[in-house]
Amino acid sequence: MGSLEVEKKTIGWAAKDPSGVLSPYSYTLRKTGPEDVEIKVLCCGLCHTDLHQVKNDLGMSNYPMVPGHEVVGEVVEVGSNVAKFNVGDTVGVGVLVGCCRSCRPCNQDIEQYCNNRIWSYNDVYSDGKPTQGGFATSMIVDQKFVVKIPDGMSPEQAAPLLCAGLTVYSPLNHFGLKQSGLRGGILGLGGVGHMGVKIAKAMGHHITVISSSDRKKEEALEHLGADEYLVSSDTTRMQEAADSLDYIIDTIPVFHPLEPYISLLKLDGKLILMGVINTPMQFITPMVMLGRKTITGSFIGSMKETEEVLEFCKEKGLTSQIEVVKMDYVNTAMERLEKNDVRYRFVVDVAGSKIDQ
Amino acid sequence: MGSLEVEKKTIGWAAKDPSGVLSPYSYTLRKTGPEDVEIKVLCCGLCHTDLHQVKNDLGMSNYPMVPGHEVVGEVVEVGSNVAKFNVGDTVGVGVLVGCCRSCRPCNQDIEQYCNNRIWSYNDVYSDGKPTQGGFATSMIVDQKFVVKIPDGMSPEQAAPLLCAGLTVYSPLNHFGLKQSGLRGGILGLGGVGHMGVKIAKAMGHHITVISSSDRKKEEALEHLGADEYLVSSDTTRMQEAADSLDYIIDTIPVFHPLEPYISLLKLDGKLILMGVINTPMQFITPMVMLGRKTITGSFIGSMKETEEVLEFCKEKGLTSQIEVVKMDYVNTAMERLEKNDVRYRFVVDVAGSKIDQ
Repeated sequence: MGSLEVEKKTIGWAAKDPSGVLSPYSYTLRKTGPEDVEIKVLCCGLCHTDLHQVKNDLGMSNYPMVPGHEVVGEVVEVGSNVAKFNVGDTVGVGVLVGCCRSCRPCNQDIEQYCNNRIWSYNDVYSDGKPTQGGFATSMIVDQKFVVKIPDGMSPEQAAPLLCAGLTVYSPLNHFGLKQSGLRGGILGLGGVGHMGVKIAKAMGHHITVISSSDRKKEEALEHLGADEYLVSSDTTRMQEAADSLDYIIDTIPVFHPLEPYISLLKLDGKLILMGVINTPMQFITPMVMLGRKTITGSFIGSMKETEEVLEFCKEKGLTSQIEVVKMDYVNTAMERLEKNDVRYRFVVDVAGSKIDQ
Repeated sequence: MGSLEVEKKTIGWAAKDPSGVLSPYSYTLRKTGPEDVEIKVLCCGLCHTDLHQVKNDLGMSNYPMVPGHEVVGEVVEVGSNVAKFNVGDTVGVGVLVGCCRSCRPCNQDIEQYCNNRIWSYNDVYSDGKPTQGGFATSMIVDQKFVVKIPDGMSPEQAAPLLCAGLTVYSPLNHFGLKQSGLRGGILGLGGVGHMGVKIAKAMGHHITVISSSDRKKEEALEHLGADEYLVSSDTTRMQEAADSLDYIIDTIPVFHPLEPYISLLKLDGKLILMGVINTPMQFITPMVMLGRKTITGSFIGSMKETEEVLEFCKEKGLTSQIEVVKMDYVNTAMERLEKNDVRYRFVVDVAGSKIDQ
């Protein structure tokens, strides 16, 4: 176990400045500590948040930054206290790699709400070094933040479940919306929205996709398996659909009026916001009061829910719709993602890209 | 039971136009039907909604209008199918006197959310006649919308529970906030807010009153029994109190920023709106997402919850803080209520005002 004693070099594709363009970057990983798992990255999904981070849209970016938080890899070494994983296991890493372990959220196993959580990249680890993400040959991650990929699930299929899949599974789980027979709405059909349709359908829900145009109608109904498709500007059909949904998962990441969608909710219905929007959203109080409706939001999910969503998708044979690309295509992929020109998730075949050669 | 055959004259105090000034008005009650209870009104609370209705603030007022929806009276006659009530019983009537009985809310005994609910006044009954409220010598009400006042509770004490008390009890009940040990906030200290402090304290909660000034501080802490008092403009103390409350009952009936209050909520905390506000309220999505917080609202309560809140207050020996006035003071009372110059509820001693003479 001599390797536990030494730092390791790795190569990732990093943004060097707010242009957000990724290019090869060599850096050092920490020594594999007793709680750590060293992972050889197989593939990594590309999420909208990656775009925001590499371009400093949130004003909190540090460079060089290796993005990527839907990471699937193979265990190549484990620390002395790691019993859960063995060399050769296929494992996943998502948005977080650390938390305080003593606050109320941590004690409740919802560490995603810990105020001292550590992000997989663009953050600082407890050893003071920057964290770097999954567009790299390897990562060293505390075992608490590593999950096993179920046998028989391909790495590429698993990757989008670690953020997009988890992000829709968690609120359905938390807000008591897992039982079959519910009627749900999915607002916005991107990476998260398409997983929303698939996961909610697998739960036995009747799903309406709501979109600003009918561009994705055929795809939603015929490929993703949605039951209905509503164009939000079609006021007649929107009125017909009033009071019909138990919940709406709202994945739109920019300002939009909420009232047309609150109207679609039944009594006690829930509007679950997923998009980080810093322009104030608006509603009038009678719209929520008179139907005891709820406006809420949710933020990724817990490690426990990560295990659950992987198991759920395995059991249901649920696959995500992805476009697998090589590392040298990642900048083009980011440009296309920015224009929503992807159905529905890019996954970079990191191991197949031989970026360390 | 000859009286079942004839209509009955009664006298109420009605608004005749949007000036909202009340004056005596004689009208006919329907025949006491088989499901009906005839009630001699003893007293009736005065609610902010009464002001809005008599002044046509919502643009839906019909005149003459006898307001009053916190009605306590004595049963003087019952219809042939009424087994639950006997002549001489002290009973209460609240905001509603009818519903469709076949929709989902009706089937779930939350008839306050029935789209065909009938209001105690300023509405049209199933017989086509206008409904009139409790500032009158008598009312005839379907037994479904009548509750027994527990033995030993005075009519004046019971009146504010039928709307104000119910309005705070219902969301605490529905949203799972009845267990002791919770930390709650009450925003705004009027008729509903003061009942909120009292009911939540009786549930064993730690209660913080949040107000725009320190004018009501002594009263809140010393008379109502609140544990803490926060002035919303005191940013230091507001910041110290961040992340500390399980819920806030927001009774402010005019536009106000929500973000300072959302910040006070813990993870999974709930902001429960009670004020009908037609100016759009605002929030940014990260504030709800990152703490999985809920913005919701609630609307009066069910008949079942009306019985529960009466029983709860009886058991806990909870009294409301009221100012009892005679009918000929009602116009002054309305002026004072408009200026929030009442601690905390006017109750009109209708029977003691001899308005039928």
